[in-house]
Amino acid sequence: MSTASKTPRELAAILGGELDGEHDAPITSVAGLREAGPSDLSFLNNTKYAKLLKETRAGAVLVAASWEGEHRSALIRVENPDAAFAKATELFRPAPVRRLPGTAASAVIGRDVVIGKDAHIGENVVIADGVHIGDRCEIHPGVVIGEKAALGSDVVLHAGAVLREHVILGDRVIIHNNAVIGSDGFGYSVDAAGVRTKVPQVGIVRIGDDVEIGACVCVDRARFGETRIGNGVKIDNLVQIAHNVVVQDHAVIVSQTGISGSSVVGRHAILAGQVGVAGHLTIGEHAVVGAQGGVTKDVPPKTYVWGTPAQPFEQYSKSLAHVSRLPKLQQKVAALEARIAQLENAES
Amino acid sequence: MSTASKTPRELAAILGGELDGEHDAPITSVAGLREAGPSDLSFLNNTKYAKLLKETRAGAVLVAASWEGEHRSALIRVENPDAAFAKATELFRPAPVRRLPGTAASAVIGRDVVIGKDAHIGENVVIADGVHIGDRCEIHPGVVIGEKAALGSDVVLHAGAVLREHVILGDRVIIHNNAVIGSDGFGYSVDAAGVRTKVPQVGIVRIGDDVEIGACVCVDRARFGETRIGNGVKIDNLVQIAHNVVVQDHAVIVSQTGISGSSVVGRHAILAGQVGVAGHLTIGEHAVVGAQGGVTKDVPPKTYVWGTPAQPFEQYSKSLAHVSRLPKLQQKVAALEARIAQLENAES
Amino acid sequence: MSTASKTPRELAAILGGELDGEHDAPITSVAGLREAGPSDLSFLNNTKYAKLLKETRAGAVLVAASWEGEHRSALIRVENPDAAFAKATELFRPAPVRRLPGTAASAVIGRDVVIGKDAHIGENVVIADGVHIGDRCEIHPGVVIGEKAALGSDVVLHAGAVLREHVILGDRVIIHNNAVIGSDGFGYSVDAAGVRTKVPQVGIVRIGDDVEIGACVCVDRARFGETRIGNGVKIDNLVQIAHNVVVQDHAVIVSQTGISGSSVVGRHAILAGQVGVAGHLTIGEHAVVGAQGGVTKDVPPKTYVWGTPAQPFEQYSKSLAHVSRLPKLQQKVAALEARIAQLENAES
Repeated sequence: MSTASKTPRELAAILGGELDGEHDAPITSVAGLREAGPSDLSFLNNTKYAKLLKETRAGAVLVAASWEGEHRSALIRVENPDAAFAKATELFRPAPVRRLPGTAASAVIGRDVVIGKDAHIGENVVIADGVHIGDRCEIHPGVVIGEKAALGSDVVLHAGAVLREHVILGDRVIIHNNAVIGSDGFGYSVDAAGVRTKVPQVGIVRIGDDVEIGACVCVDRARFGETRIGNGVKIDNLVQIAHNVVVQDHAVIVSQTGISGSSVVGRHAILAGQVGVAGHLTIGEHAVVGAQGGVTKDVPPKTYVWGTPAQPFEQYSKSLAHVSRLPKLQQKVAALEARIAQLENAES
Repeated sequence: MSTASKTPRELAAILGGELDGEHDAPITSVAGLREAGPSDLSFLNNTKYAKLLKETRAGAVLVAASWEGEHRSALIRVENPDAAFAKATELFRPAPVRRLPGTAASAVIGRDVVIGKDAHIGENVVIADGVHIGDRCEIHPGVVIGEKAALGSDVVLHAGAVLREHVILGDRVIIHNNAVIGSDGFGYSVDAAGVRTKVPQVGIVRIGDDVEIGACVCVDRARFGETRIGNGVKIDNLVQIAHNVVVQDHAVIVSQTGISGSSVVGRHAILAGQVGVAGHLTIGEHAVVGAQGGVTKDVPPKTYVWGTPAQPFEQYSKSLAHVSRLPKLQQKVAALEARIAQLENAES
Repeated sequence: MSTASKTPRELAAILGGELDGEHDAPITSVAGLREAGPSDLSFLNNTKYAKLLKETRAGAVLVAASWEGEHRSALIRVENPDAAFAKATELFRPAPVRRLPGTAASAVIGRDVVIGKDAHIGENVVIADGVHIGDRCEIHPGVVIGEKAALGSDVVLHAGAVLREHVILGDRVIIHNNAVIGSDGFGYSVDAAGVRTKVPQVGIVRIGDDVEIGACVCVDRARFGETRIGNGVKIDNLVQIAHNVVVQDHAVIVSQTGISGSSVVGRHAILAGQVGVAGHLTIGEHAVVGAQGGVTKDVPPKTYVWGTPAQPFEQYSKSLAHVSRLPKLQQKVAALEARIAQLENAES
């Protein structure tokens, strides 16, 4: 395929190391010690993981020149395993794709569209009327951009991403494949019979500079006003951001997390994977919510919470420990009961 | 951008109110008190939230004429803050997009396709053979509709949505961007060696009238027969509906919920965010499952359940309270133990 | 629509059975007993479910010739209800779609692309430079394939799926609609001020033979080396696979599960729905993680774990039972306390 193939001996020569052990099969990739197979080069940069050298299936492992210990694979001894691994990574990485400025013939561009200098508009892209695309943007195949959306400079929209009408992006924003920015918020009025009528979602989404948004993420437009993503925010795949949410600068939102309507995620806050946040709450600055946590009330700044309902980490850990000791507590109470019965018998 | 800009003084004049306080910076949007920044107009319609007026960063806040209390922002006093806010929302909303009847030149239309009166077929849409599109439907750019799918009238399919072959939609259905209706169910036979073989998924998906389906939702086609979504059902983003599920009329399914194969969600039932429902279960009519709940057995009608495994809300709340009191219980048992030991010593 | 319509009497004749009861309304589909409505044929193949015959809304139900018991619907008595139901399923299923070899006029094919024998390239597909498509592949409308990606033979990519550059697929892989293979991993370096800088994700994704991947699934490319999906792996909708994850042969991953970076899922392991796996962990071969489980440390082979944090199933079940008995334990301790007080009084 697109990657190089080297024997461990060749690799040792290229990386300025010394081969220790026999392994003739070609190496075609790099991997961590746990995940590596016979065609992978791996590395040990922290002796904490030395026991993995007894188990790894790697074809060869980069270790420090002086390293001693049990191992299964061929070793390549080098001065600096970290640096050598970085070099090997470059060796096996596929050549990066370059996208030239210009607009593909198959792209469909609406009226009153402004396309900045050196922008690349890929195949089958659809850009509606009144859109503004900044300098050096890359719009990949099949992207759809709605009416009057505005992109800053150096934005990358990956294939299949959809920006709905009036969405505003800052500079250097990256949006991954099939993400959706600006779909309608989930809002209905409900009558006495329990029948719901759509509440128009007439707001927009505004995204700051240096934001990265993962694949299949959904960011809903505001019911009114703006759903806001601040500068430097990083959002992983499959995250849900509801209408009128505000994610402040430099917050981090890990995969499959969901944030309900009108909640605020403070600056530098971190929401780990699969977290849920109820509506109209505030997650304080620098707060952290542990994976799968369910946030049902405000989280103070700099607090680490976990669990459903989310509570301070120490308290939650203590609860978990107490729960795991319940069988013992049950036994202890039974024993006390017996001793009391004996005392009562003696008494009577 | 596409929105208006007004000073608080101009806004007060437009909304028939009185400005109280100084703030010259332009207002360009509307927002709730928690999320608002200096360029937002906000509003206080319920004195319950009055304390937010001490913290809000809003540029100006609409309040009732007679309101008194601590506040940070400029106020605009009006007769009816709710009505004034609605008016302001219209002022700052972007103009709605109008889609004209007709079929874009870049759309690819198969054989034996029926397109109703005044329907709009957008750029790069692909419609396979034998599809039926009702009157006044809007099919947005990049949508793909499979063979013999049938859409009622006034259906809106947002950019990137996929309807697979033979899917049937009622009237006034809205499907948001990159949602998938009719992908194969997850079904395999497994041999003694643990190797799986695909079980053909030969059924369809049938969706009723007035249904709204969020972005990146997946509704699988039936193994046989039909996966069914009733009338008036509302489904939020990133929801998973497995094969042969039945969602009855007017049920509500919030973001990131997953419903396993052949389960039935009763009329008017509500599944909050990130709920999981195991297979072959029935959620009764008007039942509610709390956020992140994991449903492992049938839920009776009109019951509110929470937790994993899901249990009646009161019972689950009581369990949570007991767990939080465990440290105290542990201490109490230790104290009893000491007192018994003392009694035993006295005895002997 | 596209399906047949038969009266129960006609069905009985076609299936070689005997009609028991009156029902003239046409049958147009098949369904399980729970989900069936008046226009459905259902079946009873296991007497365990006989009580459902009292409740089902099915228009007619296939039962064994000798079956006796309470029922609501018309019955069709047959020798083998299972076989008769399979035959009925074929009767009501829509005709399968056939895709002819060839490349649609609207497809955009890059330079140095190899397309195998009898492959089908659908409308509006975009294939970048240097891609290799094996024999008999089906590439459905709107699919985007990035530079130098390589597909084995008999691969099916459903509409809207995106394969990013350099991704490698084996033979007979099926990827459902709007799934994304090869988006960037979620990796950043962070400076003292908490500002994140993207770490280039220069690896690839390699997928084996006979893999099926659901709709809106995200598989991130490796930071370096490869994210790997082994042979025979089955992945349900909306699953997240992070960078450098290894999913070994024949593992099964159910909907909305998320696997964090560099974790390894062993051969034949099963992750149920909405499971979360933290980074750098190993799930052993044939291990099972229950739905919504949160895996925070390695899971040994052949172990069944559940809960968050995930623990052996028996232990977790015991914990849940103890928690549900907490109100009783609390009462018991209060009673002991009273008895001790009485003893102490007697003593003094």
